[in-house]
Amino acid sequence: MNDLHIRPARSADLPAIVAMLADDPLGAQRESPDDLSPYTAAFERLSSDPNQQLVVAVRDDQVVGTLQLTIIPGLTLRGSTRSVIEGVRIHADERGHGLGTQLIEWAVEESRRQNVQLVQLTSNASRTDAHRFYERLGFTASHVGFKMAL
Amino acid sequence: MNDLHIRPARSADLPAIVAMLADDPLGAQRESPDDLSPYTAAFERLSSDPNQQLVVAVRDDQVVGTLQLTIIPGLTLRGSTRSVIEGVRIHADERGHGLGTQLIEWAVEESRRQNVQLVQLTSNASRTDAHRFYERLGFTASHVGFKMAL
Repeated sequence: MNDLHIRPARSADLPAIVAMLADDPLGAQRESPDDLSPYTAAFERLSSDPNQQLVVAVRDDQVVGTLQLTIIPGLTLRGSTRSVIEGVRIHADERGHGLGTQLIEWAVEESRRQNVQLVQLTSNASRTDAHRFYERLGFTASHVGFKMAL
Repeated sequence: MNDLHIRPARSADLPAIVAMLADDPLGAQRESPDDLSPYTAAFERLSSDPNQQLVVAVRDDQVVGTLQLTIIPGLTLRGSTRSVIEGVRIHADERGHGLGTQLIEWAVEESRRQNVQLVQLTSNASRTDAHRFYERLGFTASHVGFKMAL
């Protein structure tokens, strides 16, 4: 396989990103790849926020992975800045080849560059393979993640 | 007890906020109420970010509670906006009197006002009383929260 690079997402990447969001046991029920308009609006909002980075992994001009990194300043832990990783998706053809590791390592390195002291993410309790993956990368499953849909 | 109100935190509130962060089984080991400088710097950064709200609950001119609410736009869930609650602390004299509920309800209502579709938070696995509290308020413990200190 040719080299992979990670770069900021562009609006032209949205169809490929949304297809990956939908190609997922949980995402299949809650995404709408045939209607990009809500994603376009959200992408504009993301792009205008300096604390948000939506990136894609690209190989042979194809978008094969994505994640979102958010920087959150805060008071706890002696005024620590945190980062939050959301929306990690790998194209089906690329799973099991280390791309997930490269994307998470990018997010951790970018967090270090921005003087973040704590990187965090939540993973649905049903994604047990993902849990082992994050633990291998050095994350600790120390917390319970609570959600409330409005 | 007299009426309570919730308002944006001011820099003059920092000593009272940091005292609450430190008066906690986990916070006691990791906060520094005798040195406010890292908190002052973090407060300035928070105050300049329109997606951050640090609030305090005040009764009889005393700061008796705090939380931080962060708004995070995103692509997943059809371009949903999320909110994240961090740093919830209640003064020892006020615990068990419903102030935690009032603070979380404020955060949920403010999230609705900002068209958030999903409110989320993580709670250390050791805080079992807090887990019951969040479930009573309508949160679901559907996720595992992973952390990595840098």
